[in-house]
Amino acid sequence: MEILKQKIQKEGQVLSADVLKVDAFLNNQIDPVLMQAIGKDLARRFEYEGITKVLTIESSGIAPATMAALELGVRCVFARKKLPVTLKPGVLTTKVYSYTKQEYTDVFVADKLITSNDRLLIIDDFLANGEAALGLARITRQTGATIAGVGIVIEKSFQLGRVKLANEGIRVVSLARIQSLEDGDVTFVPE
Amino acid sequence: MEILKQKIQKEGQVLSADVLKVDAFLNNQIDPVLMQAIGKDLARRFEYEGITKVLTIESSGIAPATMAALELGVRCVFARKKLPVTLKPGVLTTKVYSYTKQEYTDVFVADKLITSNDRLLIIDDFLANGEAALGLARITRQTGATIAGVGIVIEKSFQLGRVKLANEGIRVVSLARIQSLEDGDVTFVPE
Repeated sequence: MEILKQKIQKEGQVLSADVLKVDAFLNNQIDPVLMQAIGKDLARRFEYEGITKVLTIESSGIAPATMAALELGVRCVFARKKLPVTLKPGVLTTKVYSYTKQEYTDVFVADKLITSNDRLLIIDDFLANGEAALGLARITRQTGATIAGVGIVIEKSFQLGRVKLANEGIRVVSLARIQSLEDGDVTFVPE
Repeated sequence: MEILKQKIQKEGQVLSADVLKVDAFLNNQIDPVLMQAIGKDLARRFEYEGITKVLTIESSGIAPATMAALELGVRCVFARKKLPVTLKPGVLTTKVYSYTKQEYTDVFVADKLITSNDRLLIIDDFLANGEAALGLARITRQTGATIAGVGIVIEKSFQLGRVKLANEGIRVVSLARIQSLEDGDVTFVPE
């Protein structure tokens, strides 16, 4: 997605060979026009997949997932990282490992929100080691629902997320695939 | 906002005289068509206020705030409840008290994202005791930016949030104002 790549080049900051900061339009500030374009593009890639629901995880996945759900004409479920008082009882849960924080986080979805008839599109802001997306896939499978695929805004293709998801038979569509952040430069995977 | 009130009556669950559960369309699952209508309505109410940015707090504020920002043609900043590695240094912060959890939470915004020239519309999903909105107002004032007002999806008008914000001279617009949750019924403030 060309406008996304341009945005990353213009407003992203390479903090290290592993870390890209995109707080200006995705992780702390949201560019809603870009999010709408991202939602439309992800929806188009999964247009004929019979998606009944979009699943994401708070917080940075919510804007692109809501825009994709709007375009697909379905609702968007977001997994919570803290169990709100209103969510008990009846909750699906799994543990997600964060390489950044080096700890496991429990994530939660009300069990009524996903049924065995659902066909889900999982959306997240970043794909790095794939732990969040795999966690959402585990939650989906607890319900008997099927997964049409994973839609990602920015993929760090030098990490293992895509490989791990592919090994589970899950289709991955990423709108920007980063080959390297070496020497402070963003290099994209050639298309 | 009539369609929002109907949605609350149809899909909301009164858990107690204080707690309304709207996980089906706002807090765990998002109805994107409703969020778009909410965003448009809030944007319309602040149309001539010269808004330069929308400010909200993760997570349930993000969808309505993004939709309002899209309509207003501005960006949306969301305060974080955990400090991400990418956000240091240069961060605005304040403590927000949660009556539900009975604890203080630190919230964070990158200081570059709000400047003294900004005129902000603060948006949140719920207004109860007003602590989150007041926290966002404190963060705004640290920067010298001005506040055009607070836009709320659901106000629990039997709690003190609106009064506290009014006492600080802040205009509050709520799309659904709940007078009471007594006896398991949702009663709205007469318009």
